Amino acid sequence: MNDIEIAQDAKMKKIIPLVKAKIGIPEEMMEPYGHYKTKVSLDYLDSLADKEDGNLILVTAISPTPAGEGKTTTSVGLTDGLNKIGMKAIVCLREPSLGPCFGMKGGAAGGGYAQVVPMEDINLHFTGDFHAIGLAHNLLSALIDNHIHHGNVLGIDQRKVSWRRVLDMNDRALREITAGLGGPNNGFPRSDGFDIVVASEVMAIFCLATSITELKHRLGNIVVAHTRENVAVTARELEAHGAMTVLLKDAFKPNIVQTLEGNLAFIHGGPFANIAHGCNTVVATKAALKLADYVVTEAGFGADLGAEKFVNIKCRKSGLRPKASVVVATLKALKFHGGVAVADLSKENIQALEVGLANLEQHVRNVRESFGISTIVAINKFSFDTEAEIALVKKKLAHLDVQVVEADHWARGGEGAVELAEAVVKIIEDKPTDLHFIYENEASLVEKMESVAMKIYGAEAVTFDTKVGKKIAKLQEDYGHYPVCVAKNPYSFSADPSKLGAPKGHIVKVREVRLAAGAEFIVFICGDVMTMPGLPKIPAANRIDLDESGKVVGLF
Amino acid sequence: MNDIEIAQDAKMKKIIPLVKAKIGIPEEMMEPYGHYKTKVSLDYLDSLADKEDGNLILVTAISPTPAGEGKTTTSVGLTDGLNKIGMKAIVCLREPSLGPCFGMKGGAAGGGYAQVVPMEDINLHFTGDFHAIGLAHNLLSALIDNHIHHGNVLGIDQRKVSWRRVLDMNDRALREITAGLGGPNNGFPRSDGFDIVVASEVMAIFCLATSITELKHRLGNIVVAHTRENVAVTARELEAHGAMTVLLKDAFKPNIVQTLEGNLAFIHGGPFANIAHGCNTVVATKAALKLADYVVTEAGFGADLGAEKFVNIKCRKSGLRPKASVVVATLKALKFHGGVAVADLSKENIQALEVGLANLEQHVRNVRESFGISTIVAINKFSFDTEAEIALVKKKLAHLDVQVVEADHWARGGEGAVELAEAVVKIIEDKPTDLHFIYENEASLVEKMESVAMKIYGAEAVTFDTKVGKKIAKLQEDYGHYPVCVAKNPYSFSADPSKLGAPKGHIVKVREVRLAAGAEFIVFICGDVMTMPGLPKIPAANRIDLDESGKVVGLF
Repeated sequence: MNDIEIAQDAKMKKIIPLVKAKIGIPEEMMEPYGHYKTKVSLDYLDSLADKEDGNLILVTAISPTPAGEGKTTTSVGLTDGLNKIGMKAIVCLREPSLGPCFGMKGGAAGGGYAQVVPMEDINLHFTGDFHAIGLAHNLLSALIDNHIHHGNVLGIDQRKVSWRRVLDMNDRALREITAGLGGPNNGFPRSDGFDIVVASEVMAIFCLATSITELKHRLGNIVVAHTRENVAVTARELEAHGAMTVLLKDAFKPNIVQTLEGNLAFIHGGPFANIAHGCNTVVATKAALKLADYVVTEAGFGADLGAEKFVNIKCRKSGLRPKASVVVATLKALKFHGGVAVADLSKENIQALEVGLANLEQHVRNVRESFGISTIVAINKFSFDTEAEIALVKKKLAHLDVQVVEADHWARGGEGAVELAEAVVKIIEDKPTDLHFIYENEASLVEKMESVAMKIYGAEAVTFDTKVGKKIAKLQEDYGHYPVCVAKNPYSFSADPSKLGAPKGHIVKVREVRLAAGAEFIVFICGDVMTMPGLPKIPAANRIDLDESGKVVGLF
Repeated sequence: MNDIEIAQDAKMKKIIPLVKAKIGIPEEMMEPYGHYKTKVSLDYLDSLADKEDGNLILVTAISPTPAGEGKTTTSVGLTDGLNKIGMKAIVCLREPSLGPCFGMKGGAAGGGYAQVVPMEDINLHFTGDFHAIGLAHNLLSALIDNHIHHGNVLGIDQRKVSWRRVLDMNDRALREITAGLGGPNNGFPRSDGFDIVVASEVMAIFCLATSITELKHRLGNIVVAHTRENVAVTARELEAHGAMTVLLKDAFKPNIVQTLEGNLAFIHGGPFANIAHGCNTVVATKAALKLADYVVTEAGFGADLGAEKFVNIKCRKSGLRPKASVVVATLKALKFHGGVAVADLSKENIQALEVGLANLEQHVRNVRESFGISTIVAINKFSFDTEAEIALVKKKLAHLDVQVVEADHWARGGEGAVELAEAVVKIIEDKPTDLHFIYENEASLVEKMESVAMKIYGAEAVTFDTKVGKKIAKLQEDYGHYPVCVAKNPYSFSADPSKLGAPKGHIVKVREVRLAAGAEFIVFICGDVMTMPGLPKIPAANRIDLDESGKVVGLF
């Protein structure tokens, strides 16, 4: 069976009684969306403030291959495994972006027997959060052009509008457009473009805000444009942030669904892992910690991007502190890092594996030493993995004194992740994490970028394109205390995706910086960043259909 | 108190037990969205097929003023009134468009003590139907450009793509754009633009389809573009309709909410009343008829547009047959039709009223004689209406033998509409409706347009711009059996909004025709039609906010 068939075959439990039984949220504090999804009232979550927090576990990974290495699947499997051994555990995930479902990727709600359900709902409109985020974003866009059209009291320079529009669809034709054509009734023509909703700064703000009040405050801080004199114009000056908050008020309540084994999953928010920080909402993570003893969460891409931003942006800002991390690897991906072609990854190849392990080793070192988080390595198993290969991984990692656990949740659900769950519980007891940030707020923006590049990516230096240098100097004045949010290709520690394994001595070139004044970070763009994906030649949309019984097919 | 304050002050009942108690839908056949909104399973609605239908009542109106004459308010008030006198009545309304909430209009869920609640939800994202419709539309848009980008096997002429994009926002800057800029990776540049979601043909299809199967079939029929040789290209050829149906599968289930008096309201679908037919979904109307003895519904704009399309498109296609209609008028609007300036409408003015009554008379004649529907006139009361004015209306309409009823539901809820409810029940018993279409399927498209213009608008003739004539001749070959869907300004029977009252002998100029092959009608555009509104200088968005207690303010 493929993922969607496994998901559709599942006997789901009604979510309201399930949540009530598992974590005691009273029925009137939940807002059901159908029978299998619910939102939780923010008032209820506020009432938990005095409760002790559970243990936060970060699931991160090696540098991914385009197929992914199974972070979501492992997060779900580990949560089911923890519940299997009698622990009260909840998983906190990002909401999948709808656009990519119709492109290459298909669904993004785990895989095999480690999935969250209802799978189709989660992958499609879910509880409408992304639609609300998209609309809030586009309301601000409309208000900008409307302001210019009706007299432009704020003096916005229409060449300097940095706030684009968004759509939750892979639509390359909208990447660069000219808007406002057709004469005076349609406003002033100007260059514009659309990003995918997950790339919106509203999404990043939504995921970092700890309350509705903070959400509104940060929305007001968004810098949307500059005047001819280069003065920043904010959403607050356009009186947009109140209405934007109204559009987001329901979306901001965390969503709860279940795993295939009936354990609870908070799925809330989903900022792009390149130009934003790639983690689910702070609100959901904090809520889960009040409601469970173990909370498993993930961060986008490999540990160089995901864990780095999780620590330096999400944890720094929110006060969250992970107790342990799991670095996920597949033997396939390690062989890929050792130079094996995609077609040959299912064959045993000890030499390539040995070479590729350098990637895993560097991620483990980063997470454990640079961030100070106690770490387990999980091998997300495939049926063609050989014992010799597994033995090699364990042998080669022995010098790091890190436990390597095989996890078979994809095929066996929570049962397949019992060993991993036990290892995680044990390391939390035995080896307390002492989280450290790799730079302080007081460091300059350049120093922050250098810390990330040199300490985490193993780079020798960072260079800045000429224009960028000036822009950074200007940003340093007002926003120097913000963390950096690095956008780079996720497939290599370097900015060059072909440099696999653990390249050393490379140069990180920063070609652009962007202010995210509402999200409160500065985006450093190294290499190309795609904020609006395109559809492939044969998009998944062509096969996605409703069959005669009303079942969704082709979404996998 | 203003509308939103009255709505927020209401003690709502939990929707699931309310629906169960009122019309017996079993709990497991409903899908709650929060505690006060629910969708109903299509399987359940299918199971009602053998039940007898209740009585359908159409609420329509005189030619509106920009302020509106209270059709929605009267529909809700009449429903509450019918329940007040012991009848089992449900109201079927359109879902409001989100965009206009942030522009001029504010909310659109009735007014005063005749509202549907939860008002904020209904006006904002509601159950996400419009977001689903927008996305299904934009998926098709993305697939068109993607098809051209990846080799264009179907030979689409990119100058002849007629399928635009949509957004649920008043955003004039997107009316006309150039898309696909920025080089080969972003596709081929071409002229494009955005309409508001309610103007999407997907919305019209959604509202006319009687089943998911028909929905998918009609989506496949959408003509999106033509080849260089002028061969039509459909959504089916792009293999888009399956995935579009998947995006719409939940939206297609009707929504139920309640009136302030705890009676039930189906709110589902909301096609633009100008370029589409302006009625709620056939699915919801049919469902309500199985579940209640009286079903009150409305159609957009005055009876020349709304009732005409309700009869000639919705009833013709669906088999629905109204038993009676209510033509709503306000004395304010009648005086406006009699030439009074907006500032003076609250003053008594017998002469102007007498002149303006011509508008009401013609609508009554149209509905009763042209369509054959038994008719009551409802005066939607304002506090400044005088007895002399009311007496005049009754006297002047005496020759038509139509009952004129004052209705005070805005101020008094259902109690204020008891007389109207009694009149409606009585007319259904006493005067059976014999619905007739004003043209047959077999008439030519030109004849159909002429029938509408001459029989309903009181026009002398219809003229067609040169290009349009040729296009109609071409459409006649393949689509001659479709009804016409006229787009014209709603403020006058003529195409000229300044011709108030009941102009005669005017010429209707058709400047454009558009094929809606999925919706199965031909749009005849007379005058300007705005498919993407703009925001006013001081948009409602500026005042809409969340107050400190978490209440929405400024949405009225």
